[in-house]
Amino acid sequence: MKALFVNCTLKPSSETSHTGALMRRSVHILQEEGIEVETIRPIDYHISHSVNPDDKLSDDWSLLFPKIMESKILVMGSPIWLGERSSVASKFIERLYAHSAETNELDQYTYYNKVGGVVVTGNEDGAKEVSRSLLYALQHMGFVIPPQADAYWVGDAGPGPSYIEEGKENAFTASAIKTMSWNIIHMARLLLSNPIPAEGNIAYK
Amino acid sequence: MKALFVNCTLKPSSETSHTGALMRRSVHILQEEGIEVETIRPIDYHISHSVNPDDKLSDDWSLLFPKIMESKILVMGSPIWLGERSSVASKFIERLYAHSAETNELDQYTYYNKVGGVVVTGNEDGAKEVSRSLLYALQHMGFVIPPQADAYWVGDAGPGPSYIEEGKENAFTASAIKTMSWNIIHMARLLLSNPIPAEGNIAYK
Amino acid sequence: MKALFVNCTLKPSSETSHTGALMRRSVHILQEEGIEVETIRPIDYHISHSVNPDDKLSDDWSLLFPKIMESKILVMGSPIWLGERSSVASKFIERLYAHSAETNELDQYTYYNKVGGVVVTGNEDGAKEVSRSLLYALQHMGFVIPPQADAYWVGDAGPGPSYIEEGKENAFTASAIKTMSWNIIHMARLLLSNPIPAEGNIAYK
Amino acid sequence: MKALFVNCTLKPSSETSHTGALMRRSVHILQEEGIEVETIRPIDYHISHSVNPDDKLSDDWSLLFPKIMESKILVMGSPIWLGERSSVASKFIERLYAHSAETNELDQYTYYNKVGGVVVTGNEDGAKEVSRSLLYALQHMGFVIPPQADAYWVGDAGPGPSYIEEGKENAFTASAIKTMSWNIIHMARLLLSNPIPAEGNIAYK
Repeated sequence: MKALFVNCTLKPSSETSHTGALMRRSVHILQEEGIEVETIRPIDYHISHSVNPDDKLSDDWSLLFPKIMESKILVMGSPIWLGERSSVASKFIERLYAHSAETNELDQYTYYNKVGGVVVTGNEDGAKEVSRSLLYALQHMGFVIPPQADAYWVGDAGPGPSYIEEGKENAFTASAIKTMSWNIIHMARLLLSNPIPAEGNIAYK
Repeated sequence: MKALFVNCTLKPSSETSHTGALMRRSVHILQEEGIEVETIRPIDYHISHSVNPDDKLSDDWSLLFPKIMESKILVMGSPIWLGERSSVASKFIERLYAHSAETNELDQYTYYNKVGGVVVTGNEDGAKEVSRSLLYALQHMGFVIPPQADAYWVGDAGPGPSYIEEGKENAFTASAIKTMSWNIIHMARLLLSNPIPAEGNIAYK
Repeated sequence: MKALFVNCTLKPSSETSHTGALMRRSVHILQEEGIEVETIRPIDYHISHSVNPDDKLSDDWSLLFPKIMESKILVMGSPIWLGERSSVASKFIERLYAHSAETNELDQYTYYNKVGGVVVTGNEDGAKEVSRSLLYALQHMGFVIPPQADAYWVGDAGPGPSYIEEGKENAFTASAIKTMSWNIIHMARLLLSNPIPAEGNIAYK
Repeated sequence: MKALFVNCTLKPSSETSHTGALMRRSVHILQEEGIEVETIRPIDYHISHSVNPDDKLSDDWSLLFPKIMESKILVMGSPIWLGERSSVASKFIERLYAHSAETNELDQYTYYNKVGGVVVTGNEDGAKEVSRSLLYALQHMGFVIPPQADAYWVGDAGPGPSYIEEGKENAFTASAIKTMSWNIIHMARLLLSNPIPAEGNIAYK
């Protein structure tokens, strides 16, 4: 089973990402359970702003989309800017959405039987709003959202240290990242052996 | 299997609810599949504003909470006011949240293995925001969110007719309510025979 | 000049409110500038869930609405529950909205030339979402929103101490509550001597 | 007096933008009042994902930022994707935010005394959420938000025609775009002769 972790930080892979550090804790849990995990940062690729499915051929989206389709699990990570998800996360969601008219062999939406989760870090406030936004988008496009599918760290109000400096010892965050990771594993395994029946849920066209 | 439909309209049962009309389409689908459905309107009960678990004994919440716990499926309905969920929906979510420290016999949160869905109507704009808010809260407290778990109708921008007058023929809404209904059925049945294992997801205290 | 501070805590006045403690810092600034401030908690009153303007006569709303209309400044305070404003705040906004068809003598919406601000506290995450929600509603109904009109305190991720225990020394929050307070004063004075001309903005009916 | 209209459509200027069509109704009102209006589409420029103020020199942001600073009025336009603002709008807000440590000669935030407004179109649902997001961000950074500062058009639930085909005759939208336009004019003129005093509101550092 494969999982794709998409870190929507604004920083390329040459720079340290706090969100990436929290995501790695989840990656380790999945790997210990035998899941093959790949982590990408969309900012490392040339991805256009688009909701047009045909655009997938003209930029690096054609490199990323197969990774999504091969994965049973999609975990999106995002920093928080002004209390909301990053523009990279917004762009990635729009590109996912461009495929919303595509279907599987049973005529369900193409993302059916995949499981979604979210990881967020910020130096303060906004994590639940980012999770709310990303989890809603994923379920709307066909992903299953297991219980407690979001894990985050934020510091107290105002500018200040970020996750790597200050958040690693937070017991609440440690519990949340563990719970999220295990619940996406449990749900992915469940759906692997019990895909959602194609009754009553064929794609609207 | 039981399902509880909670219509968070501001109107008591003596008045016609547009959200209730759309919810009934889902109720019928569940009933035809042999699920026992009860629909309530919290506005018919005396429910305090509270996030204190002890308050469940002092008002009508003690009548409603057992209904939730006996149900495998919880569908929340809400109208839209100023682009957001109703205050009745907010109050209901807060009371659900008051139990967030309670656990099942496996030490998972008490709402584990239940499935959540959302139905929204308004004469215009705001349905996705209401769904986003309610689905996020449900998954955060332990519910599973199946694919496409929200169904809604809204009219075009500005004041105008409501669902019963104008929305019943909308093919998109008809498809969405059918898909939502079937996916909560599929997921509830799946979880009935395959509860989420108690590994990695015990409650944080 | 009068200002009304509306603390939408779930706790009655007999209990300590953290949001109330942060609001008082703003009250003091306004009072030192000669503004007459009244603070209320809607939870102390019997207020129905309603968007029907006629309902203002049947419960305690008839006691509160005149206070709003006499005030040049309205500051709403709210705690955070599951990352959103309290149900008391939602109920209060709905009652304000029930008057949205009423107009002043120039046929502008009835809340024109009033100024809105927001104060939020929580033990973690969600302050910006609460502010976003409340400030949007206020401007949509006719209030002016001055710069940096929201002030908040939240602690780091997870359960923990609240504002009174932990937030009083936070320099960012101290700066924000001062800036918010002064900007609502500045804007209220500006509008007192320069009301918004009734050109191009008469109420839609 | 100058105004900048920023259309955050995903389409370059060679393609028709529905949001642009609704924005033009506002542009005409401002122009008739003698305001010099420029409209841009960020998608026409090379703009990086960044919250780093130093990045303004390395891409086309250096062309856009002076336009913002010369304008008394900033109107942001956005389409709706999955119920939220476009990724182009998110990227633009992040770049505005990168300057949040900069101040004017009175040590207030650099956007003080500017006025913000929002225009949204979509074929369905989400306009208020987009407005809420953009207006919040603008006020947080120092813009004044006049009453009823958002105007939008959306069609009824589901896929369907867009603003140019279906929305032009909508009386509610026509009223809203007029009111928004006049209120940003009124407020900009008010602030031109009465800038916000530098008392109590110097920038937090």
